[in-house]
Amino acid sequence: MERKEKLNLSMLFDFYEMTMANGYFRQGMQERITYFDVFFRRVPDGGGYAIAAGLEQLVDYIRELHFDEEDIAYLRSKGLFEEDFLDYLRAFRFTGDIWAVPEGTPVFPHEPLITVRAPAPQAQLIETYALLCINHQSLIATKASRLIRAAQGRVILEFGSRRAQGVDGAVVGARAAYIGGVHGTACALSDQVYGVPAAGTMAHSWVQMFPTQYEAFKAYCEIYPHNATLLVDTYNTLKSGVPDAIRAFNEVLRPRGITKCGIRLDSGDIAYLTKEARKMLDAAGWESCTISASNALDENLIRDLLLQGAKVDAFGVGERLITARSEPVFGGVYKLVAVEDEDGAIVPKIKISENVTKITTPHYKKLYRFYGNDTGKAIADYLTVYDETVDDSRSLVIFDPDATWKKKEVYDFTARELQVPVFRGGELVYDLPSLEEIRAYCAQQLDTLWDEVKRFDNPHNYYVDLSQKLWDVKYSLLEKNH
Amino acid sequence: MERKEKLNLSMLFDFYEMTMANGYFRQGMQERITYFDVFFRRVPDGGGYAIAAGLEQLVDYIRELHFDEEDIAYLRSKGLFEEDFLDYLRAFRFTGDIWAVPEGTPVFPHEPLITVRAPAPQAQLIETYALLCINHQSLIATKASRLIRAAQGRVILEFGSRRAQGVDGAVVGARAAYIGGVHGTACALSDQVYGVPAAGTMAHSWVQMFPTQYEAFKAYCEIYPHNATLLVDTYNTLKSGVPDAIRAFNEVLRPRGITKCGIRLDSGDIAYLTKEARKMLDAAGWESCTISASNALDENLIRDLLLQGAKVDAFGVGERLITARSEPVFGGVYKLVAVEDEDGAIVPKIKISENVTKITTPHYKKLYRFYGNDTGKAIADYLTVYDETVDDSRSLVIFDPDATWKKKEVYDFTARELQVPVFRGGELVYDLPSLEEIRAYCAQQLDTLWDEVKRFDNPHNYYVDLSQKLWDVKYSLLEKNH
Repeated sequence: MERKEKLNLSMLFDFYEMTMANGYFRQGMQERITYFDVFFRRVPDGGGYAIAAGLEQLVDYIRELHFDEEDIAYLRSKGLFEEDFLDYLRAFRFTGDIWAVPEGTPVFPHEPLITVRAPAPQAQLIETYALLCINHQSLIATKASRLIRAAQGRVILEFGSRRAQGVDGAVVGARAAYIGGVHGTACALSDQVYGVPAAGTMAHSWVQMFPTQYEAFKAYCEIYPHNATLLVDTYNTLKSGVPDAIRAFNEVLRPRGITKCGIRLDSGDIAYLTKEARKMLDAAGWESCTISASNALDENLIRDLLLQGAKVDAFGVGERLITARSEPVFGGVYKLVAVEDEDGAIVPKIKISENVTKITTPHYKKLYRFYGNDTGKAIADYLTVYDETVDDSRSLVIFDPDATWKKKEVYDFTARELQVPVFRGGELVYDLPSLEEIRAYCAQQLDTLWDEVKRFDNPHNYYVDLSQKLWDVKYSLLEKNH
Repeated sequence: MERKEKLNLSMLFDFYEMTMANGYFRQGMQERITYFDVFFRRVPDGGGYAIAAGLEQLVDYIRELHFDEEDIAYLRSKGLFEEDFLDYLRAFRFTGDIWAVPEGTPVFPHEPLITVRAPAPQAQLIETYALLCINHQSLIATKASRLIRAAQGRVILEFGSRRAQGVDGAVVGARAAYIGGVHGTACALSDQVYGVPAAGTMAHSWVQMFPTQYEAFKAYCEIYPHNATLLVDTYNTLKSGVPDAIRAFNEVLRPRGITKCGIRLDSGDIAYLTKEARKMLDAAGWESCTISASNALDENLIRDLLLQGAKVDAFGVGERLITARSEPVFGGVYKLVAVEDEDGAIVPKIKISENVTKITTPHYKKLYRFYGNDTGKAIADYLTVYDETVDDSRSLVIFDPDATWKKKEVYDFTARELQVPVFRGGELVYDLPSLEEIRAYCAQQLDTLWDEVKRFDNPHNYYVDLSQKLWDVKYSLLEKNH
């Protein structure tokens, strides 16, 4: 089978997006302006917050949105579309507006991470890829953030490429993990393409390739005297692994005055073995030798290891980070929230559900975060209708949208709009930050969350409130539809 | 940031593969012939078998293995490699041999799905991508096979792109799901690139775009009279959804003599709603109308729905298939099993572990499957040293490698070698089957497994036995290493 040299990601849509796009076209609705929100309903793993990620890849996709002749030929072959619609696709570009919460922002359920304003067929066709991007990377960034908190200042390295769900799972996944706070990756391609620092030294096979473990270690130290992290568990960690490593360090590194080195364990009782290894290394004068550990780790095992006093400087986390194994789905959805009528008036739309938490918040909206001026901490997020403005020079009474009698007065606060304009009339109007900037912004924004929101078990439920005006719109639509 | 037009997947390696490759080079070991096996240790979800998949993408990768100047520049920038090694990489191609179990084969723990014989740096560098390919697609094909069994002959459609872990998660994932037996996908790109049949009709947004649900349905039926599957749960499935659908079918399809149509439910109590909907459709003379259901389904929910008598013709399965949510990791590993010494003698290698199930089976091996001549069913798999041959014209006593006193005499059987040669001296020697052929072969091979191996709970443990000669090799290496 002939394979296309490069995939046209514009073709990565659920087929119904195209049948609907054609339907709008056939109905003469191809210029009808629609508003869609991307939001999620709960944080994976019962966490208190998620980390938004994936916007840069969505931007790349939007900028390249087009259908080439090969795509048109494929679509024609389905026997569903007429030539005038295929001509329309030939000239297809994204001409709408997109607002988004910047990558690295801590985010909460029911708030719009992305808002799209575009003619119906355009807004429809980008649904699948927009969700794929945001869901995948937010999932991994959120998981990484959990791991970083569990490690309490120690290093976390992403090691999961071999167990990732496809190429992007590995390469883009490592990018998202870096946003969420991990310190590096094993994946060279993610370093080359995105600048996620990649490193690595040896596997068991290196040790097995030599007549003895000592010879394997010695050879490695000679080749990489400044990058010698030796894997010590191929045969027996304490009986031969650590002693052989110390011998190699003594013979190769010490004469050269090199003190930076490391050992890594990939199996066994990490708590016990690292404590014993630490003693052996220290006794041999290798206090400077770091200890890394890997082997099916996640945030719970890391917390547990540290409680047991494990002497680990860096954790390598593989499959459980790169697949977010404990909960491998970030449930972002893409919902119609408004349409413009022929006079340009914005008509809010709601999606009803038997399940109350699945009812959408209608309308073209603004999203604010309130920070206390005394603490710098985030107090609550606040959704308004698009034409409202929050005046943070005055106090404001906010209320829980699910329990409207729960009111709170906020004062001495700063309101920040969380969404930024990304596309305006199809043109990119957003300066994409560098990966390092995103990662630093993420860490800085996490500092604005109270510890109670960040804890692992039963985190405080951070409020995403609605303005009175928005709540009234939602309530009247609910009444009308019932 | 400038992005490469097309990723060079040769750069998708864990960094330690390259430090080791350079290490072998520096040690003058770059021509040392090594043997590595890809195998897994347990079937996800406690299942009785897995489905091997991903070989075609591994073949594509091996054929394109190379490092271009941009890659060399990146590697140089790491400050770890000398120019002679970078020159070596410039000329780098795969020159070894690869044997593999064909895609679609049911496979079992501890047997080699892939065997690589190649110079050490080559065998090392392909580890990460080989595992990524085989792990990802075998994971999804195995999950799909579970879903197909649960659906008892009904249609399963893959709907998960928006929740996939990256582009390949969606596109290649749909391919793997198709191998495992699903009937189609929503993902247009997977159809275009791999030929997985894609289809789809409408989302809730289509219904919301019209003044009334009935108008949305009628418009859809007029545009797609031969492809009218209407989503009936936007407002109220039984009160308005099904009645509006029947009205649209009556008004648009009936006058044209079209009987093929469908409804889809994406929320609510699927068992109850589909039974009621079926009655309403039948009473209106639409016995031919199919009912599809989606909404966070997996094999357990599908089994449960069918036990409750749900009237569903086709299930749409999203995130729980495309991420294999219940167990999103296929734990394939890549282990050194032998090296050739300077005289070309093959020296078996073993990896010891405290954990007995993690001890590898050493040596360059052959993998047989024994089929009973009377039943056509698979009896057991059998691993031998590479130079052994099974004579299936005579009976053979096999034994459980973990409990050697458990012996069984097999007779009247046919022995089939499961691995086929794929690369020989770096040249592709395997005719890649088409996706349809792989899918049909998978279904046919599943028929050779006893139902006891395929059941969901406590499946029969299918035996992968070792020949006496291979067992002796393994045992003597274990004794030598302890």
